[in-house]
Amino acid sequence: MTSPPPGTRRRAPAGAAVLREDVTDAIRAAVFEELATVGFARMSIEGIARRAGVGKTAVYRRWKSKLSLVLDLLTVFAAQGLPAPATGSLHGDVRALLEVAAHALRHPVASQVIPDLLVEAARQPEIADTIKATLLDSQQGVAALVVRDAVARGELPAATDPGRALDLIIGPLYWRLVVVRTPLPKGYLDDLATAAVAALKS
Amino acid sequence: MTSPPPGTRRRAPAGAAVLREDVTDAIRAAVFEELATVGFARMSIEGIARRAGVGKTAVYRRWKSKLSLVLDLLTVFAAQGLPAPATGSLHGDVRALLEVAAHALRHPVASQVIPDLLVEAARQPEIADTIKATLLDSQQGVAALVVRDAVARGELPAATDPGRALDLIIGPLYWRLVVVRTPLPKGYLDDLATAAVAALKS
Repeated sequence: MTSPPPGTRRRAPAGAAVLREDVTDAIRAAVFEELATVGFARMSIEGIARRAGVGKTAVYRRWKSKLSLVLDLLTVFAAQGLPAPATGSLHGDVRALLEVAAHALRHPVASQVIPDLLVEAARQPEIADTIKATLLDSQQGVAALVVRDAVARGELPAATDPGRALDLIIGPLYWRLVVVRTPLPKGYLDDLATAAVAALKS
Repeated sequence: MTSPPPGTRRRAPAGAAVLREDVTDAIRAAVFEELATVGFARMSIEGIARRAGVGKTAVYRRWKSKLSLVLDLLTVFAAQGLPAPATGSLHGDVRALLEVAAHALRHPVASQVIPDLLVEAARQPEIADTIKATLLDSQQGVAALVVRDAVARGELPAATDPGRALDLIIGPLYWRLVVVRTPLPKGYLDDLATAAVAALKS
């Protein structure tokens, strides 16, 4: 058993050895594969390291636990998954968000890990807080930018609440892909974008 | 250990002894309490029977397993939870659905068991099928009635898809209560009803 050195952090402080980004990427890729194969509950740091072809120390140098690793991935996933679109119209921005969200929600992280973590979050407030701080706040930030731009263009009233906007944009797609789990008809994202814009303007 | 008699079914066939409805209700109430206290994973038939003050046989006479018990509860829950509203307007019907859904989604069944089952459903297709057949089909049925009435009143086009209608009505609320888990501002259900009607008409 290799324990993480005390005081280890994901981001090296100034002067510390630089962590190789290709190793970090390999570990993240291994986590995705482990998630799809064995699931979150049965996933281990050992299994991840083996799949990535690195030692467990390489994992522990970056993340202190399985939970912090997965929560970090959620952050990366959330940051990559929902870039702030700037298409020049509310409909275009909403459509772009839905496209990326649909892709993200079909990813093993969304379809398996997030539900897993939500189950844990219902009983462990600190997990709920971390999900909120990583995944939800970044989505909220993107929604706030889309709303801000739409307000600046006169497409939405100044008082539009970004939280409500996110509910109206992402909610129907999340429900459909994660709960109902039936295939989307052709053109459904266009349709949802039109519906969300009408809802936002109501 | 008492095993369920072979061929036992929840509904007694014609000629069989009638199951006492008050015992059935006591068991269902005990399941809700067990769910809230120990959670789905750790819940046992033994614990349910003890809490209900009945023998395990009384449980097994009605349900063959923990899973079938919970799936039956989901059916009851779904049937009670989403009665078809008939308020005379699309906005009124949607508002009524949201009221009942908000209540239901704050229930331990929705906030703990459904996410639990969705996690299992991601790996076991038969669970996904049962959730679909119990919970989702009944919701779909209610949405279909609301849409049918709105079409008859000329409030929605005849081609309105009930599946899309359900996504637009329930999705934002589900996302907010189950995923984001932040309190609803005052008047939020009215607001969501207005937004859903605008989305449905778009």
